Amino acid sequence: MLVVMGTGASRGEVAEAHRRLEQMAPGVTWIEGARQSVFAVAGDVAGSDLASVRSLRCVERIVQVQQPYQLTSRAFRPDDTVVSSGNCKIGGGNIAVIAGPCSVENEEQMVRTACLVKSYGAAMLRGGAYKPRTSPYSFQGLGEQGLKLLEKAREVTGLPFVTEVTSVDAFAAVEDSADVIQIGARNMQNFPLLQRAGKSAKPILLKRGLSATLEEFLLAAEYIMAGGNPSVILCERGIRTFETYTRSTLDLSVIPAIKELSHLPVIADPSHACGKWSLVEPLAKAAIAAGADGLMIEVHPDPDQALCDGPQSLKPERFGRLMSSVGKIIAAG
Amino acid sequence: MLVVMGTGASRGEVAEAHRRLEQMAPGVTWIEGARQSVFAVAGDVAGSDLASVRSLRCVERIVQVQQPYQLTSRAFRPDDTVVSSGNCKIGGGNIAVIAGPCSVENEEQMVRTACLVKSYGAAMLRGGAYKPRTSPYSFQGLGEQGLKLLEKAREVTGLPFVTEVTSVDAFAAVEDSADVIQIGARNMQNFPLLQRAGKSAKPILLKRGLSATLEEFLLAAEYIMAGGNPSVILCERGIRTFETYTRSTLDLSVIPAIKELSHLPVIADPSHACGKWSLVEPLAKAAIAAGADGLMIEVHPDPDQALCDGPQSLKPERFGRLMSSVGKIIAAG
Amino acid sequence: MLVVMGTGASRGEVAEAHRRLEQMAPGVTWIEGARQSVFAVAGDVAGSDLASVRSLRCVERIVQVQQPYQLTSRAFRPDDTVVSSGNCKIGGGNIAVIAGPCSVENEEQMVRTACLVKSYGAAMLRGGAYKPRTSPYSFQGLGEQGLKLLEKAREVTGLPFVTEVTSVDAFAAVEDSADVIQIGARNMQNFPLLQRAGKSAKPILLKRGLSATLEEFLLAAEYIMAGGNPSVILCERGIRTFETYTRSTLDLSVIPAIKELSHLPVIADPSHACGKWSLVEPLAKAAIAAGADGLMIEVHPDPDQALCDGPQSLKPERFGRLMSSVGKIIAAG
Amino acid sequence: MLVVMGTGASRGEVAEAHRRLEQMAPGVTWIEGARQSVFAVAGDVAGSDLASVRSLRCVERIVQVQQPYQLTSRAFRPDDTVVSSGNCKIGGGNIAVIAGPCSVENEEQMVRTACLVKSYGAAMLRGGAYKPRTSPYSFQGLGEQGLKLLEKAREVTGLPFVTEVTSVDAFAAVEDSADVIQIGARNMQNFPLLQRAGKSAKPILLKRGLSATLEEFLLAAEYIMAGGNPSVILCERGIRTFETYTRSTLDLSVIPAIKELSHLPVIADPSHACGKWSLVEPLAKAAIAAGADGLMIEVHPDPDQALCDGPQSLKPERFGRLMSSVGKIIAAG
Repeated sequence: MLVVMGTGASRGEVAEAHRRLEQMAPGVTWIEGARQSVFAVAGDVAGSDLASVRSLRCVERIVQVQQPYQLTSRAFRPDDTVVSSGNCKIGGGNIAVIAGPCSVENEEQMVRTACLVKSYGAAMLRGGAYKPRTSPYSFQGLGEQGLKLLEKAREVTGLPFVTEVTSVDAFAAVEDSADVIQIGARNMQNFPLLQRAGKSAKPILLKRGLSATLEEFLLAAEYIMAGGNPSVILCERGIRTFETYTRSTLDLSVIPAIKELSHLPVIADPSHACGKWSLVEPLAKAAIAAGADGLMIEVHPDPDQALCDGPQSLKPERFGRLMSSVGKIIAAG
Repeated sequence: MLVVMGTGASRGEVAEAHRRLEQMAPGVTWIEGARQSVFAVAGDVAGSDLASVRSLRCVERIVQVQQPYQLTSRAFRPDDTVVSSGNCKIGGGNIAVIAGPCSVENEEQMVRTACLVKSYGAAMLRGGAYKPRTSPYSFQGLGEQGLKLLEKAREVTGLPFVTEVTSVDAFAAVEDSADVIQIGARNMQNFPLLQRAGKSAKPILLKRGLSATLEEFLLAAEYIMAGGNPSVILCERGIRTFETYTRSTLDLSVIPAIKELSHLPVIADPSHACGKWSLVEPLAKAAIAAGADGLMIEVHPDPDQALCDGPQSLKPERFGRLMSSVGKIIAAG
Repeated sequence: MLVVMGTGASRGEVAEAHRRLEQMAPGVTWIEGARQSVFAVAGDVAGSDLASVRSLRCVERIVQVQQPYQLTSRAFRPDDTVVSSGNCKIGGGNIAVIAGPCSVENEEQMVRTACLVKSYGAAMLRGGAYKPRTSPYSFQGLGEQGLKLLEKAREVTGLPFVTEVTSVDAFAAVEDSADVIQIGARNMQNFPLLQRAGKSAKPILLKRGLSATLEEFLLAAEYIMAGGNPSVILCERGIRTFETYTRSTLDLSVIPAIKELSHLPVIADPSHACGKWSLVEPLAKAAIAAGADGLMIEVHPDPDQALCDGPQSLKPERFGRLMSSVGKIIAAG
Repeated sequence: MLVVMGTGASRGEVAEAHRRLEQMAPGVTWIEGARQSVFAVAGDVAGSDLASVRSLRCVERIVQVQQPYQLTSRAFRPDDTVVSSGNCKIGGGNIAVIAGPCSVENEEQMVRTACLVKSYGAAMLRGGAYKPRTSPYSFQGLGEQGLKLLEKAREVTGLPFVTEVTSVDAFAAVEDSADVIQIGARNMQNFPLLQRAGKSAKPILLKRGLSATLEEFLLAAEYIMAGGNPSVILCERGIRTFETYTRSTLDLSVIPAIKELSHLPVIADPSHACGKWSLVEPLAKAAIAAGADGLMIEVHPDPDQALCDGPQSLKPERFGRLMSSVGKIIAAG
């Protein structure tokens, strides 16, 4: 940790800062610069100590040399984590495609989609039962009934499924039913939900928040791992920028960046990121080429009739084409 | 609602779209352009109908003429809403300053701060008992014990207090104790929490999300009002941009914009927005000059020792100076 | 063009707007809604007329159905434009890699890099002679001497080169020397420079501005084409977001989006976008997988000694590895 | 300067970095941490040396303790700079309002507006003769003829005027005619233009770029001052964010931040920032309350007929009302 003192810090303030820092950690070095002085503190500093240093009026800023996340860091576990659910493996060289409709609407839609995406090679199903919606007047999902339909689709296809949970209250119901539990972008910093996920025995698929930095994303995963759950799949789904042609901006640079910083698997959701079906296939290929461990793709048997996010849903045949071209990218790996 | 058909839409697709639209609403006008045609649909269209139109492959985009929020709109209620708690009124010409520490730390700190900010003219107390923290290793707040200390500070000063709730689980405890319940920026789209707030009899202070548009902000308030709670105070606390000198970018243009679009009171939190105590006073003055109905200011008796957000906390005397200069801006109003 | 009238527009104002619109274009349809009325105007409206409608106080907003760019649009030219320079072709299925150092430093560095990147398959050289630098105290490039060194490298390798021009003053010198002229991100809306480029017989490589929307990017290219120069290569080089781990955020969704909207070739510059050499190869592969017509890659024989942007420069062998893996992605097509 | 070595840096690399750093500056301290080591370098390091350190593969990052700008810094000149033009003074407690139309359209419009804004208290005129326009098909301004009309307005009112220059070519013409020369947001990093401005004897009004950080803004001013021109007025005009209700997001926190970091005067342009006339007055008041040294306000005698930016232009009477309410904020100071 480097503590940069302000230009106007007095001798007394510098001495007081020095005294405090030495109480916190053994190795404190004082470097006097032309206009500003800096303290270098070796070793770990507790979070509360850190806050107390940051609060000192004479401190201009603190530069943390080490990353604030630990369990999620590559340093903590040099080998790639592989998250498994049924026959589906994600990470460590295993690439999986998760597919299905945005919302579970009815049995026919869900089962038919499940069979079709399986036939094209999807390894896991997706479908929203609890839908976080911007407007209170939009379709909010089928809730527990939706979970039953997902179970039916699993029964028919043998594929595991992932579905989103939006509250601690509904967590147990989702946990009992789903194979993988999704925490959506809007809840990436819903800390009680992350803490609950940390106590689950099921893998968690954690989506990046709309304006979350990479560090915040890894710290959200750290909440889950610190709670005791080592099975976290990270998912890039686009960040909010000034561009309006696409719904969000898919940030594929986080894929290789996460590979450097963390051992956790990372997948991409091009459907939600761009919001336009015609851009999904090229972005899916790009995500795999960038090193993603998987994809999450929206597929609807009849997008023209979808209750939610139809414009970004692929028709099954288009999904088949995507699987074929993504397969070539994987092979080119 | 305007439905813009894509350039490649065939006659058959246009006819099908026309047929569907006429099932939804009576007044559908078809305007054939040189290259693209447009349908204008008068009257209200249900949310699910809207999704089904948006999903049509031949539709390029939908332009909504009317705002998607209703109860929060100025059209719904032309007069300013005034939210009251004890003697404190916010909105409709009533300007109130809410002050206190970021986190409740102990009785001495909370009560002393409360007395000091009251002496300088604060009308409501603030203090965090449940703290949403980016890192699982940061101080997470005193929880229910913190609520007790806030009650103590209320008892001593007679001032009402606002404190944040971060989960549906803890809602009842906060609701029983607090005068006004805060939903923080990270939970602005925590829809189960908003729905719970809609059932409360206590006023809700809703902070804008870090990357929330004005429309999403008003739709979050709409969740609360649609649930039956008419007492919502909006709070601008800075949005995330590329600028790194300040923690967030305080967006003061939303203050007069909200005044045009909505009847709800709106306040500003310059402390969290900028993250630097030296910028708080000028931004507080600016917020009031822009038309804000109030301010939320962090004050700590000894910021150098604060457990949280010390760098943005004002010392009590500086807060006194802020109250004096803000008072002059109000008078100049 | 759709003209949405404000909720408060009076009968007289609507009539006046109607009168004005009919003077501008023949087909004006008036659609009266429940609360707001809309005019639909078929056919083209001149820019100055548009401004005069937009300025009407009773107009809430204007929705343009047609794209504001013409010559750059896919509608104007359905087939892909292929830009050629020497043996290097870009667009219409031709993929080219442009490589070289950020700055031209000396003959040995430039010629050696040129020979090496040629040996690995680069089709064009790059190197900065006129450097736009954020600080006046940074190395500003060798200017005309740099052009001479680039010519030398071309002579030795037979490869064409692209180099940046930063002012109308220096345009003639760059135009005489370079094969392709680059207009950098900071000058994407330097309109006199774009107009000058429109009069050139040399192809222009136009980089997207740091906060430019896709529409603004295509309008900048429109300036060049409207001036008479049909040879424009677009280049995505990252946009500015809140993320700080990478220098900018490479927006690969614009690659397929540009392919839909425009006939112009589009390439990606992952080196400048991410600012970290270790992320360049995965992002280069991703860009090609997303459909890019080429890449621009920084290569330096000894990045540890580079005068500029060393941290994002690849060593020649790493560039060779990139060419090999990118080649596999191209083959997987 | 602090040089943070990567976690994987070998002993040999650390030694090589140490050797290089010692060649650059006398006071190099080596601090060995648990996992990473850091070098602290006291004193100034030349820009090219800095680049060569940054390029070392074993260096993770460089933290600059001192600001990269010098002449624009408060440390360089502790007292506020006052920029004068005729009777108009800006900075050091002098607050001035600059007003006029977006574009100069004709003599009647320009002179009438000038007389009206003078009668309400404006201290300087504004009007665009060279207009940077996103589309090549938009009105591009009257050029030199526009300058003549501005001179006429100055003659009639006795007020100085500011107008934008968009190229080095047109600089001399604008310099001969105008009292203050504006460099617009799109040219904030047009370095040849900044260098030309540095050689001028006229004051420069420099607008912040749409995605410029505060540091880049001050470095752009540094270009002008380093060229020899000490008279720079900074102007905040809104930055680009995801919010679409306003055109840009006025960032008022930079006003007090600039006051801390620099001695240069800073004004705000709420008209361009918000793009909606109804928000201009509250934001103008807010800017002054935040400490701005002046305002730039668009006024048009008949905004319904404006050739450019009518929706954000105030009618003269509304401008009068703004001047009155801003006057009260100044008095409340």
